[in-house]
Amino acid sequence: VLLCDIGNTTYTFYDGKRLQKYPTSSFSPETIKEDVYFISVNHPLLEVLSKLPNWHNLEERISKESFYETMGIDRVVCCAATKHGVIVDAGSAITVDVMKDGVFQGGFIYPGIQAFATCYGTISLALQTSLELDTSLEKLPKNTQGALNYGFLAPLHKEITSYDLPVIFTGGDAKRLATFFQNATVDELLIFKGMQKFL
Amino acid sequence: VLLCDIGNTTYTFYDGKRLQKYPTSSFSPETIKEDVYFISVNHPLLEVLSKLPNWHNLEERISKESFYETMGIDRVVCCAATKHGVIVDAGSAITVDVMKDGVFQGGFIYPGIQAFATCYGTISLALQTSLELDTSLEKLPKNTQGALNYGFLAPLHKEITSYDLPVIFTGGDAKRLATFFQNATVDELLIFKGMQKFL
Repeated sequence: VLLCDIGNTTYTFYDGKRLQKYPTSSFSPETIKEDVYFISVNHPLLEVLSKLPNWHNLEERISKESFYETMGIDRVVCCAATKHGVIVDAGSAITVDVMKDGVFQGGFIYPGIQAFATCYGTISLALQTSLELDTSLEKLPKNTQGALNYGFLAPLHKEITSYDLPVIFTGGDAKRLATFFQNATVDELLIFKGMQKFL
Repeated sequence: VLLCDIGNTTYTFYDGKRLQKYPTSSFSPETIKEDVYFISVNHPLLEVLSKLPNWHNLEERISKESFYETMGIDRVVCCAATKHGVIVDAGSAITVDVMKDGVFQGGFIYPGIQAFATCYGTISLALQTSLELDTSLEKLPKNTQGALNYGFLAPLHKEITSYDLPVIFTGGDAKRLATFFQNATVDELLIFKGMQKFL
């Protein structure tokens, strides 16, 4: 079965063997001729896909009752694949959700690395940067680049570690972020494991 | 003496009695005829002000030796006014600096409330919001607005409280933010108290 997770910027396909990524800006979904089971947080694309008979929106089969009605379907699916732990889906947004003994505890949304860097630049020319995740979280920084790197990462790190639960990273920036967390695992297939539960 | 703190969006004047604020986009500094002692993190304005003989840049009198060379002059001045504590200057950016027994320990920069809200909107239409600081930090949210409010505030809150020091808030959003912190004080004059030390 071909699965597809559609985010704000990327189509990610999984055929049971390998992941393939395409930018939403240039990929044409009608080039896929086989059946695709997808979820999408990209609302403008939903209308396009609804016209393609081989693209099946898995969201229609998924109850959000244990979560909340407007929760992103990607978060719901990752939570459904996780019994106990913090799920950090690090893409253009970073979503953080907490599951305890199979029960959703709530979650929050933080800007992704790229969005955070762009955000600094909108405040002041002096803060234009690309964030580097080689920063130390042990010591407060004493330079501008460090102050921006730390501002993105340290508050998020303190929040996530405060739950004292295992942390599972998924999404495009999973590996880069996971290096800062002890007892963290990276599972790039988490969302697809969740989707398989609803097939 | 007339003092002025120039940020990315606002001129704030203090005459020893009251604060007056004007947007940088519309205020004309040549309308002030008396001597003004100012600091400015707004670099484009520095050139304009250097041509006005009654506008005196206090930064020229301030050594950054105990801090670092590219540190914003507003942060340096607020630190100079603080012996022991966390200084949170909440404006278009939120700067967080730590002083212990008169020694600068380092600090970081976080986007201001408005910039953070705009940042969410750049990621996805579904995340367009204005942040509301009426959120609970006790429980993880289970709704989208709550997930965005919490994402802005809770990580920052955990970072700042982790130092276990008194917290002093200043800047335009000082009051709104301080309500979430125990043992926090608001001092809208902090930067001017620091400037007075260098007169």
